[in-house]
Amino acid sequence: MNKDIRITYPGSEKVYMQGSIYPDLKVGMRRVRLTPTVEIKDGKKTMTENAPVYVYDTSGPYSDPDIETDLEKGLPRLRQSWIDARKEGDTQMALAKRGIITQEMEYVAIRENMNCAELGIKSHVTPEFVRSEVAAGRAVIPANINHPETEPMIIGTNFLVKINTNIGNSATTSDMDEEVEKAVWSCKWGGDTLMDLSTGKNIHETRERILRNCPVPVGTVPMYQAFEKVKGKAEDLTWEIFRDTLIEQCEQGVDYFTIHCGIRLKNVPLSQGRLTGMVSRGGSIISKWCMVHNEESFLYAHFDDICDICAKYDVAISLGDGLRPGSTYDANDAAQFAELDTMGELVERAWAKNVQAFIEGPGHVPMNKIKANMERQIEKCHGAPFYTLGPLVTDIAPGYDHITSSIGASMIGWYGTAMLCYVTPKEHLALPEKDDVRTGVVTYKIAAHAADLAKGFPGADIRDNALSKARYEFRWKDQFNLSLDPERSLEYYRTSNKTEGEFCTMCGPNFCAARISHSLKDCDR
Amino acid sequence: MNKDIRITYPGSEKVYMQGSIYPDLKVGMRRVRLTPTVEIKDGKKTMTENAPVYVYDTSGPYSDPDIETDLEKGLPRLRQSWIDARKEGDTQMALAKRGIITQEMEYVAIRENMNCAELGIKSHVTPEFVRSEVAAGRAVIPANINHPETEPMIIGTNFLVKINTNIGNSATTSDMDEEVEKAVWSCKWGGDTLMDLSTGKNIHETRERILRNCPVPVGTVPMYQAFEKVKGKAEDLTWEIFRDTLIEQCEQGVDYFTIHCGIRLKNVPLSQGRLTGMVSRGGSIISKWCMVHNEESFLYAHFDDICDICAKYDVAISLGDGLRPGSTYDANDAAQFAELDTMGELVERAWAKNVQAFIEGPGHVPMNKIKANMERQIEKCHGAPFYTLGPLVTDIAPGYDHITSSIGASMIGWYGTAMLCYVTPKEHLALPEKDDVRTGVVTYKIAAHAADLAKGFPGADIRDNALSKARYEFRWKDQFNLSLDPERSLEYYRTSNKTEGEFCTMCGPNFCAARISHSLKDCDR
Repeated sequence: MNKDIRITYPGSEKVYMQGSIYPDLKVGMRRVRLTPTVEIKDGKKTMTENAPVYVYDTSGPYSDPDIETDLEKGLPRLRQSWIDARKEGDTQMALAKRGIITQEMEYVAIRENMNCAELGIKSHVTPEFVRSEVAAGRAVIPANINHPETEPMIIGTNFLVKINTNIGNSATTSDMDEEVEKAVWSCKWGGDTLMDLSTGKNIHETRERILRNCPVPVGTVPMYQAFEKVKGKAEDLTWEIFRDTLIEQCEQGVDYFTIHCGIRLKNVPLSQGRLTGMVSRGGSIISKWCMVHNEESFLYAHFDDICDICAKYDVAISLGDGLRPGSTYDANDAAQFAELDTMGELVERAWAKNVQAFIEGPGHVPMNKIKANMERQIEKCHGAPFYTLGPLVTDIAPGYDHITSSIGASMIGWYGTAMLCYVTPKEHLALPEKDDVRTGVVTYKIAAHAADLAKGFPGADIRDNALSKARYEFRWKDQFNLSLDPERSLEYYRTSNKTEGEFCTMCGPNFCAARISHSLKDCDR
Repeated sequence: MNKDIRITYPGSEKVYMQGSIYPDLKVGMRRVRLTPTVEIKDGKKTMTENAPVYVYDTSGPYSDPDIETDLEKGLPRLRQSWIDARKEGDTQMALAKRGIITQEMEYVAIRENMNCAELGIKSHVTPEFVRSEVAAGRAVIPANINHPETEPMIIGTNFLVKINTNIGNSATTSDMDEEVEKAVWSCKWGGDTLMDLSTGKNIHETRERILRNCPVPVGTVPMYQAFEKVKGKAEDLTWEIFRDTLIEQCEQGVDYFTIHCGIRLKNVPLSQGRLTGMVSRGGSIISKWCMVHNEESFLYAHFDDICDICAKYDVAISLGDGLRPGSTYDANDAAQFAELDTMGELVERAWAKNVQAFIEGPGHVPMNKIKANMERQIEKCHGAPFYTLGPLVTDIAPGYDHITSSIGASMIGWYGTAMLCYVTPKEHLALPEKDDVRTGVVTYKIAAHAADLAKGFPGADIRDNALSKARYEFRWKDQFNLSLDPERSLEYYRTSNKTEGEFCTMCGPNFCAARISHSLKDCDR
């Protein structure tokens, strides 16, 4: 692998916007340059400029030609000075509750709005709004004090819908460098956060390498490492082993933990009548521990201790849904909803200790049952952000589950889910490879963006409209450059088009509707 | 190309169900054999049979090893004797209105239900129900008397959601044999109808070859051929040229025509204020004619003549949406809805002449505006089946528009759309190749099936549940064989798994949630 990794986007440049509360803030974004519209009127050629389009950018320093990156050294420590000026216990939530707008809060406000103000588009996302949402627990800024490389981002229903990419090796595949490469690759395509789900060898080292080189928040499921420590024997787990694992990962800089604290001993048997039992790894491990010991889960029993640790490092908790349905048949059942009730209790306990928290959701849910999930989550979990995996709306398409799940993801995102966990074409079959990560991320960018559009998020339609205009005016390169995957759209276009004329091979020159439609102007009477 | 084309599905066999009203009816379907569930209880191995799963089958004689197929000779003429016994004017709709249940009607009732009765699942789809839906115009059985090779199928909101595949060459690409190959390929993956949208050379010959070898209804846009006849000069079109083209295609056996009769002279200017004008080929051609001649469209003016021709051959009319939005920005605008109003008028005129009809819909529509489309269509078009292209829920993902559109397609299918026109990854960029057709069809099978599940269609969840059970029990081959694309799921599995054990590389043996979940049974107390 090259030591100096670069991310480039065609026709685009890295630009920065400055803060006002914190004038030193530099918020990176991508600006896509467009070519002018050319029209022939009365035999005279006129050219009209098209304004550049700003795109939310997750690629961090990798797309800034002025910053040298080096995987051995890690990324610049953007947040270090902000963190240094704070005191112990100054979590984003604690500060928000005290009425303080942090650098992170102004950063995300700028990042969400981009150039909307300049375009005259009114946005509800002010730094003060960010603060109030974080204070209320309706939004989370995952930002471990030991991960200063993170560019701040926000997860909440009143913000842009975010997506998460899962990477990580298992006992049978993948090595460390491949995982780092996948991490940067995910950032290139638009992944907002990254979960390292490694379960194989070198968990600690792989994570360290990822954290030092990752410009987006990193999440983990600490149970996986704890489970490795007891050599895969669930019954040998103890609170102490788990606690030490948490601290180890907090020290490294993990920004959020998925912990399956919502599983209660009494609720485990609810999964026994299911078609597909339990399909959460973390959930099944802690359930096994509960059953073998016939004892309440130590994750539940020690929840306050977990919060104390997280508060110290400002790590967010993602309440894992161990009882999520693994099939559409099991959707919205007693097991799933019992766990959601427990999560509602826990999220308030987390907030009391100034720990930011969000709630994980299903899984596999037919379309007609999706809305009920969202409504119940908001009610039971007091507006805490929802973070869902899909959901898949049918079970019959292994090999295409990025698609089955993007349908559910778009809908639940529109209904209010704050972050969507991606699913790749290899889901249920094998670990994703690099191209699967790309497909998964782009598919989920589609779902998240479709949700933003449907919610009417300020400025969300700028890119759609600019691309549609470019398409209608045969500005092919602009169309490609504005697309979620400029490389793939160009590649597909090239498969059968030799030139960039006023038509494509779909219809040929005579049958091009856009071309005929343009010619109607001359018929106006 | 091989003269004898075969379609095979792993672990499956072709079976036929017999009619009761017409005992000679043989309705083909696919039966997927499953392996038994193996359990070890108290050290003893028990095996439990899993019932085979019946799958709706669009592959026709190509998957029957007892039928020899030959592209030169064409398929067996399944419906010939039924047609021969009828009189002129005996369209499916005319017969339905007279209270007659045709062979086609019983055929589709059996086809929709498969083995539901045997499984004790109650279905509303009786032959009499089919008749009443066809009589009311709420469902269409496209079945030209000159296309006896068609296996009857039904399009209506109270039936399984269907999908259409577009194929066809343009002036710049593809040849005749390739198109036939794509047609059979579409049937293999589950395409319910096929539109031949050829605009290049040999339109007549390509269509003939497709029709004689196609077991599903074939649709066309006759304007394309008429337009070729006037060498691409819209203003030179005449009613007579169009009429002769219609008759030519009726004689060949085309089952339904997309005709853009809904465009009125007065409504054409409504498209001028749009971001993307007109994106329908047929629509833009007739609009140009209207504008140049400053005259009402001959398609509208001669609608009753069109119906008379269609009635003679029992060809269905698909009222094309020439003013469909080509971008999310233009969705649900005055132009689109003005055309819908006209369609509502025309569909009643078609019914009056016993011509079956359905209504084409958009296009590009953000999620929050989809439901309004469906509700308005039902209201304005008196319950005639809706047939939509997608809709795409965002414009920013060329190269992935099978996905952006499958999201909208699933939703509008759930809301009531009867047939979904597929979109391939090459949409907006180039003509689809064979693998794009496969991806497009499978993606739309997902959308249609997700809609069936959400609507609670009788027995729709049988395949999902069987596949989920197989997945949870590590019956890998059953999982693959039950999937929409057995070849791809096996291929993906094989990329990293060497054996078919009780885990896969996603999690490895220790972290397999399903495995741990099974082991919980032994902990029961």
